[in-house]
Amino acid sequence: MASLGEFEFIDRLIKEPARQGQAFFRNPQALGIGDDAALIPELPQGEQMVIATDMLIEGRHYFADVDPASLGHKVLAVNLSDLAAMGARPVAFTLAAALRTIDVGWLSAFMDGMLTLARETQCPLVGGDTTALPDNAPQVFSVTVIGALPIGSALRRDGLRDGDDLWVSGTLGDAAYAVSLKNPSEKLLRPSPRIALGLRLRGVATAAIDISDGLQSEIGHLLTSSSMRGDAPHGFAAQMRLDALPLGAGLREALTREDIGSDQAIEWAITGGDEYELLFAASERDRSAVRDIGYQLGIALTRIGSVSIDKGAPGHRNTIEWRDAQGVAPGSALQARIDRGGFAHF
Amino acid sequence: MASLGEFEFIDRLIKEPARQGQAFFRNPQALGIGDDAALIPELPQGEQMVIATDMLIEGRHYFADVDPASLGHKVLAVNLSDLAAMGARPVAFTLAAALRTIDVGWLSAFMDGMLTLARETQCPLVGGDTTALPDNAPQVFSVTVIGALPIGSALRRDGLRDGDDLWVSGTLGDAAYAVSLKNPSEKLLRPSPRIALGLRLRGVATAAIDISDGLQSEIGHLLTSSSMRGDAPHGFAAQMRLDALPLGAGLREALTREDIGSDQAIEWAITGGDEYELLFAASERDRSAVRDIGYQLGIALTRIGSVSIDKGAPGHRNTIEWRDAQGVAPGSALQARIDRGGFAHF
Repeated sequence: MASLGEFEFIDRLIKEPARQGQAFFRNPQALGIGDDAALIPELPQGEQMVIATDMLIEGRHYFADVDPASLGHKVLAVNLSDLAAMGARPVAFTLAAALRTIDVGWLSAFMDGMLTLARETQCPLVGGDTTALPDNAPQVFSVTVIGALPIGSALRRDGLRDGDDLWVSGTLGDAAYAVSLKNPSEKLLRPSPRIALGLRLRGVATAAIDISDGLQSEIGHLLTSSSMRGDAPHGFAAQMRLDALPLGAGLREALTREDIGSDQAIEWAITGGDEYELLFAASERDRSAVRDIGYQLGIALTRIGSVSIDKGAPGHRNTIEWRDAQGVAPGSALQARIDRGGFAHF
Repeated sequence: MASLGEFEFIDRLIKEPARQGQAFFRNPQALGIGDDAALIPELPQGEQMVIATDMLIEGRHYFADVDPASLGHKVLAVNLSDLAAMGARPVAFTLAAALRTIDVGWLSAFMDGMLTLARETQCPLVGGDTTALPDNAPQVFSVTVIGALPIGSALRRDGLRDGDDLWVSGTLGDAAYAVSLKNPSEKLLRPSPRIALGLRLRGVATAAIDISDGLQSEIGHLLTSSSMRGDAPHGFAAQMRLDALPLGAGLREALTREDIGSDQAIEWAITGGDEYELLFAASERDRSAVRDIGYQLGIALTRIGSVSIDKGAPGHRNTIEWRDAQGVAPGSALQARIDRGGFAHF
């Protein structure tokens, strides 16, 4: 049941800060928090809308003692990462939050982390729902983000072509390394959604996905989606290069210090989640175009493998093979750990 | 971490059924579940998008032993009711679900209830997120629905004009009566969002809201929003008629049987939540237009009061006064219970 206190609280902590610094609200067609629904101004002609939703649950996606500003940032960032992987620009988002208690200090910091990223990306909070939970229930945050892109220009998962290169942005493995140390790194706490990269990859990448579950799992998603496409009755084979993996700075230092071995570093880079980098495919002909995009944005873009149509494979069977520079496969222990990372052979 | 089992499960229980019977997917611009984000086909020119989100939590919004098909229906219905209150047509929705266990029978029934309503309203499920909860944690369902309407035609909360009539659709009080009996009525289990009514009220109603928290609370929202509008520096006063309240059939029977007294019936009609009827305002000049809409749709539309600008009220003070046909106010006990119903004087 709504009470006066609740409405004052929403106004002070959420509604007013949500409007600050957002050009969105200067459009007379726009309406934010406070009605039955929010109003999104008409899109430019020739654009279509994109929508994604992601839920973060205490104890599963984050620890209860997380810095609330970092959590607020992350709840929005993981959704913006989905927009980036489609090549969409952010338009607006909604937040549904289930909270045990209303701790004004905690929630102010949470909103500040979320709304700072919202301002940086010009993606305003336009609607929400707040519910009180019983004691001991894990808190839940569910964000839905909408974006926009020119009709037909989306970077889908199912666009792989025979012979495409596979590329990854940034570096891999530091998020999993930080989890293993119980020492949350900046990357784990405050992932930076690759929106600018996604926009530039439209018309260049043939397929794209963001790395939330781990590289191996996401390669599998690209293969599976593309092998189910109408014109692709065969499976795909991915040939991946262990030596090309762009390891995170934390992992590289740990290797230098011999705190960890190279198999451990490779395992984390291939199977670690929460990276929010982009994995994408592009034609061999577009290698220099991809490198130019990386230089211009100041983002490392690394070619880590390629895919080919596997004419010998029955049905939609897809495979992922990792090899080092000498063509040597991972040892059986490492291979087993890679296979457990969400994708084997199917 | 994603597993093969999870993907097969999503395909079988969610992805394929979500496409059935939905004209949406015949548009080549459309993309549903299975990528980083869903793609919404371009809107007709001159339309803008509407977005609303609502979360339902076990133990708070529904009982753990609820019929799963009814719960699936309700999770979508409460969101569609928000679109109805804006005068928007449904376009698509996303679902984020946090589940303790995956009980295939329960979830099949839940999806069936949700997707039956989705087909009836041509509002396809286009994206989602499913997360496993620890034991004992309450389950959470969060839906975000998008709709569309001609630019500038939204039925907002802040549109009240001096002298407007207040109307309500359907009947009131049966949901609260059913809760008191612990005997869930059809209305409580399967609310019917007033989408067709919302569409017809565009250009007629000056303001609208759906009744989720209770009539008294929703009248308060209309007054508050409208009194904060730039051109309305005064508060509003609502003059409401106790004798005009359209009591639900269950309440009327209980009154006839003398199972409950009239004060109890009035309390439930004024303060009971979960009705999902529309409360709306319209000019006195449009009384016959409103009645025609009700006749044509076969929906009871009842004039239950009116609002006036309260020039004597300082600041944005708003008031709601209930009187019977003889001008007599409720007794002090009933008035206290009405005031506890979410809105007093402010």
